[in-house]
Parts: sequence; C-alpha cells; structure tokens
Amino acid sequence: MAHNETGRDPTPGMRFSPVLMARLEALAAFTEVEGQLTRRYLSPAHVAAVGQVEAWMAEAGMSVHTDPLVSAFGRYEGRTPGAPAIMLGSHIDTIVDAGRYDGNLGVLAAIAVVAELSARGERLEHAIEVAAFGEEEGSRFPAHILTSSALIGAAGPALLDIRDADGITVREALTRAGGNPDAYGDCARRKGEIAAYLELHIEQGPILDTQGLALGAVTAINGSVRTMVSVAGFAGHAGTVPMGQRRDALAAASEMILCVERIGASEAHLVATVGRITALPGAQNVIPGRVAFTIDMRGPSDPVRDHAHAALVTALKEIARRRRVEVTIDAYQRNAATALHPLVIDVVAEAITACGQQPLRLPSGAGHDAGIMAGHCPSGMIFLRCKAGISHNPAESITMEDADLGVRVLLEAARRLDRRLG
Amino acid sequence: MAHNETGRDPTPGMRFSPVLMARLEALAAFTEVEGQLTRRYLSPAHVAAVGQVEAWMAEAGMSVHTDPLVSAFGRYEGRTPGAPAIMLGSHIDTIVDAGRYDGNLGVLAAIAVVAELSARGERLEHAIEVAAFGEEEGSRFPAHILTSSALIGAAGPALLDIRDADGITVREALTRAGGNPDAYGDCARRKGEIAAYLELHIEQGPILDTQGLALGAVTAINGSVRTMVSVAGFAGHAGTVPMGQRRDALAAASEMILCVERIGASEAHLVATVGRITALPGAQNVIPGRVAFTIDMRGPSDPVRDHAHAALVTALKEIARRRRVEVTIDAYQRNAATALHPLVIDVVAEAITACGQQPLRLPSGAGHDAGIMAGHCPSGMIFLRCKAGISHNPAESITMEDADLGVRVLLEAARRLDRRLG
Repeated sequence: MAHNETGRDPTPGMRFSPVLMARLEALAAFTEVEGQLTRRYLSPAHVAAVGQVEAWMAEAGMSVHTDPLVSAFGRYEGRTPGAPAIMLGSHIDTIVDAGRYDGNLGVLAAIAVVAELSARGERLEHAIEVAAFGEEEGSRFPAHILTSSALIGAAGPALLDIRDADGITVREALTRAGGNPDAYGDCARRKGEIAAYLELHIEQGPILDTQGLALGAVTAINGSVRTMVSVAGFAGHAGTVPMGQRRDALAAASEMILCVERIGASEAHLVATVGRITALPGAQNVIPGRVAFTIDMRGPSDPVRDHAHAALVTALKEIARRRRVEVTIDAYQRNAATALHPLVIDVVAEAITACGQQPLRLPSGAGHDAGIMAGHCPSGMIFLRCKAGISHNPAESITMEDADLGVRVLLEAARRLDRRLG
Repeated sequence: MAHNETGRDPTPGMRFSPVLMARLEALAAFTEVEGQLTRRYLSPAHVAAVGQVEAWMAEAGMSVHTDPLVSAFGRYEGRTPGAPAIMLGSHIDTIVDAGRYDGNLGVLAAIAVVAELSARGERLEHAIEVAAFGEEEGSRFPAHILTSSALIGAAGPALLDIRDADGITVREALTRAGGNPDAYGDCARRKGEIAAYLELHIEQGPILDTQGLALGAVTAINGSVRTMVSVAGFAGHAGTVPMGQRRDALAAASEMILCVERIGASEAHLVATVGRITALPGAQNVIPGRVAFTIDMRGPSDPVRDHAHAALVTALKEIARRRRVEVTIDAYQRNAATALHPLVIDVVAEAITACGQQPLRLPSGAGHDAGIMAGHCPSGMIFLRCKAGISHNPAESITMEDADLGVRVLLEAARRLDRRLG
C-alpha cells in the first residue's frame, strides 16, 4: 500500500465515476412520481431502492441487513472479524421533486469505496460499514433525521405515532414497508461498535463552486433558531384610508424582513431567511391586517447566532412600536451547532490534499445525518461541489471529475482514519 | 314649506333614525349565511331583500318595478306625472361577511325621504325615484357596478356569460332569480329621464370620523391603477447560501413594498396598497425564488396618480437591478377619476350646512354607483361618518344621530336640487 505512504492517489482519471454516475441515474428511477425523483421514507419507491442498494452492497462484498426502521447496512469486515467499524454513508430518502445527488451520492460513493477495497483484496483494521439511512429529509413525516437518531438510541416510542399528511402513522407505514415498528430500539448501536462516521455529501450551497474548489472538509453543522412572527395591524379599504392613518401589517412586515436580511448579513457564516409569508385578508383592495412570516437563522457559533437573534427581536419590536402594530415573536425551535470531530476534520483535509486538491474547511448550513452521528462517535463530512450551489431541485448537478474525486477522497480518508483511530 | 326658506331643519331630534335603523337591522337578516350578512347579487337572499325593499317603497307611496337585471325601483311622482326624476339610491348587494350599512343605508334613507314627503303630502317639480341596485360589490361575479352600468346603457351582451365561482352564468342566475336576461337592454334609461342622481353612503374611511364631522360632500370618485408585480430571484437552501450570494425574491419584494408605501404617501389624497402577496416555494427553509404582489393606487387627480405610478415603476426596476432579480410590472387596469357634478356638490354642501353641520368636501377612495351614474346625469354623493372608518367588515357602525342627519340632509338636498335643476 505504498500509495498511502506517498500521499498520491493510485488511480488518477475516471476510475470510479462512470459506474457511480450510472448507478446514481439508475437509483433516481426509484420514484413515487413518474417524471421526477420523489422518494419519501417508507414509500414503495423507498423500499424498492433499499433492495437495489443492498444488491449493490452484496455485489461489493458486503454482508447486508435492513434494520427495523428500514435503513440498509452493508458490512465489509476488517482484518479481524467483528472489529469496530468505520461507518460511511448518507441517506436515500428524498424531498419531493428532488435532485439525484443529495444523500444518494454519499451512499453509492461509500459502496464504491468498499467495492474497490474488495476488488483489491484489501482489508483494514476496522470493518467498513455502509449506511443507507431511510429518513433524513422530513419530506413525509413531520420529523427528520429519524433513522440515524434511532441508530444512536435517541429515538423514543412517540416516533411511531407521528402521522404523514394522509394520516398514516410511522407504525403503519413501517408495517406496510416490511419494517418492524416494535423493534425500533434494536436500531441503537452499542458505544464502540462504530469507531467513526464519515459522510460524503454535496455542499448544497455555492461556496465551493464560487471558490473553484471540488471538495471541502466540514467543520460543524450550523445551529439554527426557527421563529414565527405574527404582525397584527388593522385591515381597511385600500381606497379610503389615508396613508398616514394606516396600520398596514404588510408594510410593517416588509420593514421587518429587510431587518432580518440586514442582521443575517452582519456576521460571517451567519444566514437569516424569511421563507414563508401570508398576508390576510389577502385581497387586492384591502390593506392587510394580519401577516405571519417565518425566520430561519443559522450559524456555526451559538453565541454569535443567539446575540444576532436577540438584536433582531429588539429591532422587530421597535419597528412594530413605531408603526403601531402588534408583533408576536415565537422562537419555537433552537438547535445548537454541532462541532464535527477534529481528528476526522483533519483526516478529511489531509485526504483532499493527498488527492491533489485544496482542502477548504467550511461549516454546513444544512442539517445532516453526520450531525446526529456526532453525538455517538467521532464524525465528519466531505462536501462535494454542486453546480451553482443548486440543491433540493431537479437541476442539482455534479461533474464526472468531482464524483471521481469524491470516491477517491472518501477511500483515502477511510484508510487514514483506519490508521489514526488506532 | 317655510323650513326651506329659513335653512333650518324642521325636525330636529330623532325623527327618522329609529325606523331607519330598525329597517337596516331587519334587512341584514336577508343573508345567504346564517350568523353573518352575505347577500350576493341574485342569491335567494338578494331576491328576498328586493321583495322587502319594494314593500317598503310601496308603503312609502311609491309605484314599484323590478328591472330585468333585478334592480328595484320605486317612483314617487312630482307635481306633474311623468316628470323627469331625481334619483336617490344605492345598492343592496353585499360582500361576504359584510357590515349592514354599506349600500343599504343609501337605499333605506331614500325610502325614508319619500315616506316623509308622502306623509306631508309634499310633491316636488321632479319625481323622486329610489334605486336599489343589485350588483355593485363584485362579490359574486367578476364584474362590478353592473346594474347601474346597465341603467346608463353601458352594459353589453357579454355580461350574461360572466360566471361565478360555481360556474353559473349571469344569464342562468338571472333566470333562477326571476329576472329576464334577454331584456337587459330595457334597463337603459333615456337621456333626460333622470335629472340627477344623489347617493347617501357611509364614507368607508376614517376622514370624517377623525375630523369629528358627521357628513361630507363628495367631490370625485378616485381613479385607480391596479398593478401585478412579479419578482423572480433564485430559490436556494436557507442554510447554505451565503447572504452575499442570494437573489432573494422576498427581500427584494419587501424593499419594493416599502417603496409603494413611500410613494403612496408622497401626495395628498393619493393612496397605494399592497394587498396580496405570495412567495414561492413557500417553505420555511428555502430562500423564496418567486414573489408576486398587487399594487392598488388611487387618487382624485389622474395626472398626479399617473406621475406617481411612473415614478414607482422606475423605482421598482432600480431595486430589481440592484438586487439582481427580474421584475415584471403589469398595470392591468386603469380607471380614470370621475368628477361629480359641481351643482350637486354645492347643493349637498348647502344641505349639510342647512342641517347645522360643517360640510367637508372630500373625494371618495372607493368606487360607487354614483361614479357610473355621473356618465349619464348630474350626480353627487353624501358621505356619512362610520366609526373609525371601518367598512367591509361586520364591525361597520354608525350612530343614531348621524343616521337621522343623513336622512335630513338627503331630504334637504333633494328639495334644493328640485329647485336648482329648474
């Protein structure tokens, strides 16, 4: 294994991406909706995709099992059978009308890594386990990152009673999908069973593409605070109420939205977004009396984000006071930022360098299974450039070159982790 | 008729309002929806209300007829039978979940005026005709002020094919309601048949209430320009796209909405309102890529309004350019302002003074049947104060004192018009 010692990649060119890209395309055909990729958790399309992924796992030399929540796992033993595993993976559920790389890339790249080890007859000290998590997106049930949460023992019985938009519970959906709702506790792994978790994922943002870099070493999963803002002014006839006598809830909300934008831009790595807005009564000729909007604020530093959020709340109240409207601000969900493991971050950066690329260290603005796994074992992520940062969109796109590099870096990082974890 | 010579009202106190307010309450019971007032054109509730109004007309000494479009008219002859008529009236259709005074006040006050003349055995040179128009609000069919338009000969055969939300045409609805769709042309009156039109109506805005005045003489029906604005930015993940790289359609729209507000406030009597907004995809964690909103701009001066609208269009395009979003601005409907007749305005102001009140002259921000009738004969309006300017709302409210004054001023104005029209 002289290639590890030199830090040079042994397989320049397109060793991995032709098969990988063909499989990503084939997997995209597992969909609930003809003509688009929609593969929500426990849908028939998801169950069929589990079968396909497990077939590829087995073909790569892995022993395969499906857990009670219908996540798929493949295990490639290390030199000593039963050794702790380095887990590589991501998720195979999708949003409605998804791109084909979000989640799926990380799973199929991990299978490619094992296929390469297997083809070379190469075994590491650790086993390699490939995870194809079933529920990360929250596109069916009002829960998300459910299956990796179950793996670390963080799922409770209440998850079985969550209902989708059709009123179907997780319990019912699991039973129909061949899962085993009552055995969800068996998903949980013992401490030490997984030595580290590493996830390759498209960036879903434009930072790598803007900087002309193929890959990045993720340092943290950003924390977030999600807020619902309600503004109550006074509805009135659009033709008859003089401008100076109005208490226009939408004009007030507009000033607030610009304030969200300004405060979001006030700190590096901080972002703040108003994604939903409703104005009532919503008639062309009526001054809006009630407006509700959401604020999604994220950043890698909890104190910075909390300080910005507090400043925002103060500013919104001042706008409301000046405009004589009522404002209600409900910060209904706060998630702390999750630092990824320094060892895994370093190993990823080294692997990127070893593959001839410049390793940018950057936080993840989106949530990922790695953020859950970090509560269980040393965890890290490799970000792969996606065109223009477009994601959660059928236009999601990556290059053959980057896909190949992604597998090579994941393989290189796995080998390095194997040594560094001791 | 010495009371006319002195300019003093002969009946101080509450001569008219006890009956008037009781009838307004009784009429509010003619509704499509139990527990609220919803009486759309040609609904069974509207047809029943026509019957009630015609009964009150007949009781007041009028001959009654229903025209082919189901507007109700009562005629009280002048000294010479068949003389040209001074028409007093308004509409009896309502919006969904309406107040009880919008429209109905003007019709029932006009009946009270005739009842008073009739009780006194007083006949004028002109006949008095009371109109209860059937369709002013546009709350059922996508047309409005349809029945007074038919009266002045401005309705065409296309009106019969307009459909309501259930797909029912005006033709079908008329047939069910006992109207006569094919005879709609018979609604049109000959020039000279109506010598003047005068409508008492609640202000539907706060100007009178703010100034502590009961009544106003309306000078014009404001013109309007209705505009649809579409903003196309670029949707993206709320967690992953740095603030500096966003093309957020909602942040751009918010800046535009504040610009609408600022320009609307830049000229006296001008108003501008954004009443509807939609942001897509409309997810809490997605940067909005597309936003559409409406602008309703009104004012009594067409050049002032057109100049302000042009300035607004320029400003919105500049915002779009700076924020790298596309903007489409479609001014899809322009209605010129309608000046009411100087003679009728003066007579109304004199009548208000004669009843001991200060006559404020003000434009109407809302459209009214009087704006249509102004194309046919000298027309005017009396505005009556409504509490806090609230209208198009079940909370619409007027006082007993103001209601009584309204009838007295309408009577006084009718008598003065009778003399001044010669």
